Amino acid sequence: MTTLTKEVFEGYTYVEGGVCAAKGFSANGLNCGINPDKEKNDLGLIFSRVPCQAAAVYTQNKVKGAPILVTQENLKKSENIASAVIVNSKNANTCNPNGTELAEKVCRLTARELRIAPEEVIIASTGVIGEPLPLEPFERAMPELVRGLSEDGNDRAATAIMTTDTVKKEVAVRFKIGEKECFLGGMAKGSGMIHPNMATTLNFITTDVAIHAPLIQEALSEIVKITYNCLSVDGDTSTNDMVSVMANGEAGNEEIREIGAEYEIFRQALFIVMENLTKMLAADGEGASKFLECTCEGAVDLDMAVAVAKSVISSDLVKTAMFGEDANCGRIFCAIGYANADFTMDKVEVTLASETGSVLVYKDGAVVSHSEEEAAKILAEDKIYILVHLHQGKVSAKAWGCDLTYDYVKINGEYRS
Amino acid sequence: MTTLTKEVFEGYTYVEGGVCAAKGFSANGLNCGINPDKEKNDLGLIFSRVPCQAAAVYTQNKVKGAPILVTQENLKKSENIASAVIVNSKNANTCNPNGTELAEKVCRLTARELRIAPEEVIIASTGVIGEPLPLEPFERAMPELVRGLSEDGNDRAATAIMTTDTVKKEVAVRFKIGEKECFLGGMAKGSGMIHPNMATTLNFITTDVAIHAPLIQEALSEIVKITYNCLSVDGDTSTNDMVSVMANGEAGNEEIREIGAEYEIFRQALFIVMENLTKMLAADGEGASKFLECTCEGAVDLDMAVAVAKSVISSDLVKTAMFGEDANCGRIFCAIGYANADFTMDKVEVTLASETGSVLVYKDGAVVSHSEEEAAKILAEDKIYILVHLHQGKVSAKAWGCDLTYDYVKINGEYRS
Repeated sequence: MTTLTKEVFEGYTYVEGGVCAAKGFSANGLNCGINPDKEKNDLGLIFSRVPCQAAAVYTQNKVKGAPILVTQENLKKSENIASAVIVNSKNANTCNPNGTELAEKVCRLTARELRIAPEEVIIASTGVIGEPLPLEPFERAMPELVRGLSEDGNDRAATAIMTTDTVKKEVAVRFKIGEKECFLGGMAKGSGMIHPNMATTLNFITTDVAIHAPLIQEALSEIVKITYNCLSVDGDTSTNDMVSVMANGEAGNEEIREIGAEYEIFRQALFIVMENLTKMLAADGEGASKFLECTCEGAVDLDMAVAVAKSVISSDLVKTAMFGEDANCGRIFCAIGYANADFTMDKVEVTLASETGSVLVYKDGAVVSHSEEEAAKILAEDKIYILVHLHQGKVSAKAWGCDLTYDYVKINGEYRS
Repeated sequence: MTTLTKEVFEGYTYVEGGVCAAKGFSANGLNCGINPDKEKNDLGLIFSRVPCQAAAVYTQNKVKGAPILVTQENLKKSENIASAVIVNSKNANTCNPNGTELAEKVCRLTARELRIAPEEVIIASTGVIGEPLPLEPFERAMPELVRGLSEDGNDRAATAIMTTDTVKKEVAVRFKIGEKECFLGGMAKGSGMIHPNMATTLNFITTDVAIHAPLIQEALSEIVKITYNCLSVDGDTSTNDMVSVMANGEAGNEEIREIGAEYEIFRQALFIVMENLTKMLAADGEGASKFLECTCEGAVDLDMAVAVAKSVISSDLVKTAMFGEDANCGRIFCAIGYANADFTMDKVEVTLASETGSVLVYKDGAVVSHSEEEAAKILAEDKIYILVHLHQGKVSAKAWGCDLTYDYVKINGEYRS
């Protein structure tokens, strides 16, 4: 995985702790036997000692994992109150005849052990689709999983959700609302089957900010459009994508119940954590050797900016050219040209950049002659930035992805075995 | 490339000759020096001794190769009369500052040598985007190219349009309209950057049927939706896609000027040739080791059938699983689920098939337990058929593609070098 540097945002400090950074949250993870590799955690739990206001977004795939359906139902019943997340890897519990029943049973098991209501449980699964998932590993492991909950258990939970991920993905920030110190942190998994639509791969976010669920939902739905939805590893929108946010109010601020300055502070914290997790997911894309970021500026609206940026980082031909460190810029222009948005190519400028240099490659409807050597130097870096300026409006957006490599084919030709 | 068997259609006989099968057409191809490999033809010419009624469809990419713009303009000026196709490979003449001027000059060169009007020339280019294309190779080669035109020159022309193609692609059929013997044939190129939208890669079709241009356009626009537009190798819609049809009337039938029985005979011939070429393009996709065909039945309308079939054969995860011969059917269900169409999954049935057997893998919203051994046997074949029955309507469509292999990454990591 490419090492990313976190962008600095005034008023927000990155801290350790992931989903346990916020006060009142504990976590744990262990191997319960779904994954035959006993060294690999496959079951994770996040718990808040007080009930949380909660919000979530889900995959738009018509094939939905049973856990997605059960979580939607739970949050409806509980009126958006949640106290725990239970999540397994290695088996997606999707397309199984008894999948919903199993997921409900796991919620009941978790709730009983934690002494909470079953509808306060957010449940998620990730892994192979269409393989039966037995209840027995959950039954056997639940007492130990709950007993082991601790305020530094975030790493154990974060490793439990990994599948083909090569690194665990956690981010947390500290910030202030009035005089109150607040925390917001999250963990994510994802490496392949990543082309989120309205939601993404598994992401669990916790905060001690006191905020009413509908406002969390509003912030989450807005931010997901410019973070996770701008990420593509392979164009495949998963069946089990979910992002959940739990806010337990332990920071002690007066509950945020309307849009205003305090809501904006919370919203920015959520954006920072979600953008960082998105970039980490891109950098750890299956088989990736390079991190790609495309910025589209000068768009008429956000949809246009996102369509162009995402089209570039989704192109298999751009991705293989980046892997081959071949400045075959025509493929970038081609991908801009088939983006689903209404703009003209005449004013477009395209710049290829890395952290050490940049080169203008397209202007006035044609290639700008440039030094192949300079372009090659940029592509030799492991973080490549493609800047597209449409010069047609004032809106910008970013999208993130990775190169397409032999290892992607290898990982996915052999995934189940 | 996988060897395909041509489907049998009553009343139509496959014949040799490609674009020269129809009476009155000749062709030639040679190396003019755009491609430094002197063994590889890079310039092709198709000529009709009498002017033709012509129709074409073009890429919908906003970045359009200069030859696309010039051909559109020519057919407009000539009121859909064409006499020749001039086409080069190795350089797409796209995103070049003087690209249009160059393409116009090549049309004039071709026309002068053939003693026709420049606007009767259809021009096309394929290859690298954004590299200047000099006029000199065309000037030098044109006399020899025209001198060498012959009624068995179709292979020379078909090889001239190949880029990363491993085989030349030609199909022709013989049929009758009334008592008149007619021919319709075509050639195609394409291997990567294939995800056509309203048109595709380069395809040139010739016929001796007498038919009015607007009817050719109607048949072409309709058939392209269920043939080339249902093809995907890598999700990248090219800048230079074009399909042209030229009809010179040498068969001697009374010109078809309205929709009726004779139009249907012509339309079916066009469909047969275009479907065969589409399948040949899929089987020779860059790096392909397997041919994939997805049939979607029971759709409410054609858009739905196409969306589902194309979603399956476009999925990188399905494609890598096929390469790995891994019956990871969950990926197929996932790709059906994110197809952009409005249907429910409950009634869907999915069957995996080869020429030797088939196995039902999905029904009633869940995986059907099946023998892994049987599934593995199917996937060991080099032609894989995925059958999706939506059970929601009566319309069906097919889509074609190939597996995603190490060789695809290799070819595209190194394409320019």
